[in-house]
Amino acid sequence: MTTYGFLGMGIMGSAMAANLVRAGNDVIVWNRTPEGCAPLVEMGASMGVSPRDVVSTADVTFAMVSDPAAVEEICRGPEGVFEGAGPGHDLIDCSTVDDLTSELLAAELAQRGARFLEAPVTGTKQPAIDGTLVFLAAGERSLYDDVAPALDIMGKLHVFLGRAGMASRMKLIINAIMGSTLAALCEGLALAQKSELDGAQLLELLDAGAVSNPMFRGKGAALLSQEYPASFPLKHMQKDFRLTSELSERLGQPIPSIAVANETYKRALAQGYGDDDFSVVFEVVR
Amino acid sequence: MTTYGFLGMGIMGSAMAANLVRAGNDVIVWNRTPEGCAPLVEMGASMGVSPRDVVSTADVTFAMVSDPAAVEEICRGPEGVFEGAGPGHDLIDCSTVDDLTSELLAAELAQRGARFLEAPVTGTKQPAIDGTLVFLAAGERSLYDDVAPALDIMGKLHVFLGRAGMASRMKLIINAIMGSTLAALCEGLALAQKSELDGAQLLELLDAGAVSNPMFRGKGAALLSQEYPASFPLKHMQKDFRLTSELSERLGQPIPSIAVANETYKRALAQGYGDDDFSVVFEVVR
Amino acid sequence: MTTYGFLGMGIMGSAMAANLVRAGNDVIVWNRTPEGCAPLVEMGASMGVSPRDVVSTADVTFAMVSDPAAVEEICRGPEGVFEGAGPGHDLIDCSTVDDLTSELLAAELAQRGARFLEAPVTGTKQPAIDGTLVFLAAGERSLYDDVAPALDIMGKLHVFLGRAGMASRMKLIINAIMGSTLAALCEGLALAQKSELDGAQLLELLDAGAVSNPMFRGKGAALLSQEYPASFPLKHMQKDFRLTSELSERLGQPIPSIAVANETYKRALAQGYGDDDFSVVFEVVR
Amino acid sequence: MTTYGFLGMGIMGSAMAANLVRAGNDVIVWNRTPEGCAPLVEMGASMGVSPRDVVSTADVTFAMVSDPAAVEEICRGPEGVFEGAGPGHDLIDCSTVDDLTSELLAAELAQRGARFLEAPVTGTKQPAIDGTLVFLAAGERSLYDDVAPALDIMGKLHVFLGRAGMASRMKLIINAIMGSTLAALCEGLALAQKSELDGAQLLELLDAGAVSNPMFRGKGAALLSQEYPASFPLKHMQKDFRLTSELSERLGQPIPSIAVANETYKRALAQGYGDDDFSVVFEVVR
Repeated sequence: MTTYGFLGMGIMGSAMAANLVRAGNDVIVWNRTPEGCAPLVEMGASMGVSPRDVVSTADVTFAMVSDPAAVEEICRGPEGVFEGAGPGHDLIDCSTVDDLTSELLAAELAQRGARFLEAPVTGTKQPAIDGTLVFLAAGERSLYDDVAPALDIMGKLHVFLGRAGMASRMKLIINAIMGSTLAALCEGLALAQKSELDGAQLLELLDAGAVSNPMFRGKGAALLSQEYPASFPLKHMQKDFRLTSELSERLGQPIPSIAVANETYKRALAQGYGDDDFSVVFEVVR
Repeated sequence: MTTYGFLGMGIMGSAMAANLVRAGNDVIVWNRTPEGCAPLVEMGASMGVSPRDVVSTADVTFAMVSDPAAVEEICRGPEGVFEGAGPGHDLIDCSTVDDLTSELLAAELAQRGARFLEAPVTGTKQPAIDGTLVFLAAGERSLYDDVAPALDIMGKLHVFLGRAGMASRMKLIINAIMGSTLAALCEGLALAQKSELDGAQLLELLDAGAVSNPMFRGKGAALLSQEYPASFPLKHMQKDFRLTSELSERLGQPIPSIAVANETYKRALAQGYGDDDFSVVFEVVR
Repeated sequence: MTTYGFLGMGIMGSAMAANLVRAGNDVIVWNRTPEGCAPLVEMGASMGVSPRDVVSTADVTFAMVSDPAAVEEICRGPEGVFEGAGPGHDLIDCSTVDDLTSELLAAELAQRGARFLEAPVTGTKQPAIDGTLVFLAAGERSLYDDVAPALDIMGKLHVFLGRAGMASRMKLIINAIMGSTLAALCEGLALAQKSELDGAQLLELLDAGAVSNPMFRGKGAALLSQEYPASFPLKHMQKDFRLTSELSERLGQPIPSIAVANETYKRALAQGYGDDDFSVVFEVVR
Repeated sequence: MTTYGFLGMGIMGSAMAANLVRAGNDVIVWNRTPEGCAPLVEMGASMGVSPRDVVSTADVTFAMVSDPAAVEEICRGPEGVFEGAGPGHDLIDCSTVDDLTSELLAAELAQRGARFLEAPVTGTKQPAIDGTLVFLAAGERSLYDDVAPALDIMGKLHVFLGRAGMASRMKLIINAIMGSTLAALCEGLALAQKSELDGAQLLELLDAGAVSNPMFRGKGAALLSQEYPASFPLKHMQKDFRLTSELSERLGQPIPSIAVANETYKRALAQGYGDDDFSVVFEVVR
């Protein structure tokens, strides 16, 4: 039986790992602050002392951390992933990073004889809990095929998009569209409220029309109540905008709407809303 | 039995009037260019010689024209609506206009003893044909109640939003959100294509995620094929952005994302794409 | 000798009228709140009881009020300009308005036999005091020629730009460039301060380079001290952005940079900074 | 007597090195394509075979290349700067790069015992020829003091801004303000031309007002004639916007006006205008 490693017990990682454990798998987990592992250990996971320990013990290790810098740290740091990776000890990075980070990771793991797959997800807290994430995978095709059973447990869909880096690109673009769409909703809602219209009625009418979508339904209540418990923290959304912006610079594709939405998220981050749900961007729009 | 008038036989008006005729109503139609009335007359509608003729003959007359200037023209022009309106000869304006235009119309018709309802719709060509529009109504409540049967024939939902002008505001805000969302999709798709990603795959993944919505599905094929048969012409969408922008100025609500999307639609309009579907905005984004 | 009327004793109007008085002219002034006339009366001006009174007494009357609505009001209101204007009783509007307002004014005054010139100015408080304004004039050429001596007293330069409306267009465009440039400076200064750079040093270096300009020098101190005594109130600058935006809609010319700067000024206005100098926009940028 | 090295014989570098030669200094030059050195050699400079050769021969070597990647290449490449640098063989980088690149360079040269100064300039082709550049210097203070005579020959002003990286930050911010200001001018000019106003008259009136500046005068003719001989190539301006954008991300400072101007420059770059003067941005604005 495959032993799975899991690095990063944040909102997403802990929910994903829990699904692997519940499905009867051997799972070894690690988190920067060890107390983050406690709930998983209670469920039956074992706990590793370092990324190196997890990677060298498990057959395949998933990583789910916040940004490229965090990935770099768990890989290159002392007792890091690179020290444990090798033939039979592969890595799947589910973090949302830029394509250059993934390309580099792939190359460095290949040197060590380990296979690499990037597999960022769409879907936030609830789909992670429900096992209905969508995995965007790219890198080693054989590793993708091998871990299909695990991806099936944690998600409802997984697709293979080619060489390492392509999944990161796809993920960033999807998030940028999502974030820009929410920014437009926030502006529309603010204008409706200034117009003496009922915000709830706006949301109902949107839901009866051509842009009816789960995010508007899901975030609508947060916007109306102005309470924003983190499902997908704003600081992560803003990071994805930043990486999308870099991609657009590299490829020479102008993205004015996305760029302006990014500025609004940056404003929210500057005002201290980074740990709230990204829908908190409404607070700097209204 | 109620006789309905219908002014404006464009993409939307002709489809809506056809549904009234099909349902067995007496309908008298008018269009700026008379040949636009032919299909309806073939179906059994009668044809009026002027807005005044239609309004003074029918009990309730619907208008569906392109913008505030067109509404002004059919109302104030010689042989116009104002000359035919009066007690028992009411007007329902389904055009998307600004709230000030609606307020003024309501006041002028009230002076003539006619009731007024603004009832802009969400939904474009196909829902108009299918009778699944959503009517946003505001103005005279009694008129709203009286025409409920006609609204039920042409739409799947109708809501009453208060005094004249409120429905226009709601409609403009919904369209601005819709147009901004499409602009963000276009930018994301352009970036995906520059990234060597498959556009169709981007659309599939969006459809599996939190922003899955009918518009992305409906316009996706147009964007991939770069053919844009008009369902909702770009010039009308840009007009709605303009009116939303004016509303935002009047109410003092900043809307940076919507403002930048507007500039992109203005660019498309300047490049001669006004009569194509608004999804043609992709051509100035890519 | 020509008798000059002057309507509107705000920051600009009072300084301009004072220069006319100082130069030995007969000047009759009026202000919405009569106490605004006191300083001029002390200097030797006489005071009119209404716009009508001033216009019908003076040969040529200057108006300098805040926006198109204020111009409309002093012209059309009871005891307004239109009641006093006629042959030999001409009007020069120095307010910054849109071109449509000027065109309409010109037409209505022509009907009354009065000549009309629009003559918005560039330059704010200090140039008004110093008599170094620049007048952008358009409308009746003969009136322009007749009042050249008065324009020479109040300004350092005057140009004639053609039919009524053309000067308004020019003025709006100049202000939009000015306001956008200041918004860019504010963003750069905010970024410099976040970068631990010295703001005063940034201003010095800018002044040694290709964009060295009087506005950066003049507003620099305000930005560094974060005190913004009104020279040109932000609400007026935002109004000019609004009118520029409408012009751009009408002419079909996209202006993304100007549009985004406008949103920043709208944010400042929404936060209550309307009566401060427009450089107060720094407060919502930093 | 000090021997100066000079790496990079582009528009700027060749003009700067020429001034050093003309002032009687021993100068050894190098360019990626050797024919770029010919004019300098004719004037009396000697020619090095590689960056290493130049740096190890000269006491102090100036570098003036296009972007961070080019700096990296001449430093780290085979026969690069790092191989020639050491005690008594110092480097002054006049290229416009990001602060991180400068910090890294400073650290790596310090390890080799060489001193480092970053000294990006404001001013483009003509000031380089005239010796009226402004040097923004940061890094080793002693090196700054030592090369003051050379900076005095090539420029009209030099300032010291602190630790390595600070001058890069200042330079990027200045260029972002400059580029944003020009974008606003282009939009205003395009709107003026659509308004049937005379573009030359707009430029004259701007020059009589608060934003009168050398850049508007200098670029005005280019805009009116729509010919854009490169003084400062658009690709370099866009690169500076990109680096400013990264700085703003890192420091958490929103810069919406600058971000939107960047998108306009990106559009111009995508349309193939990279080698024209940055004022060519007018072509995608009008």
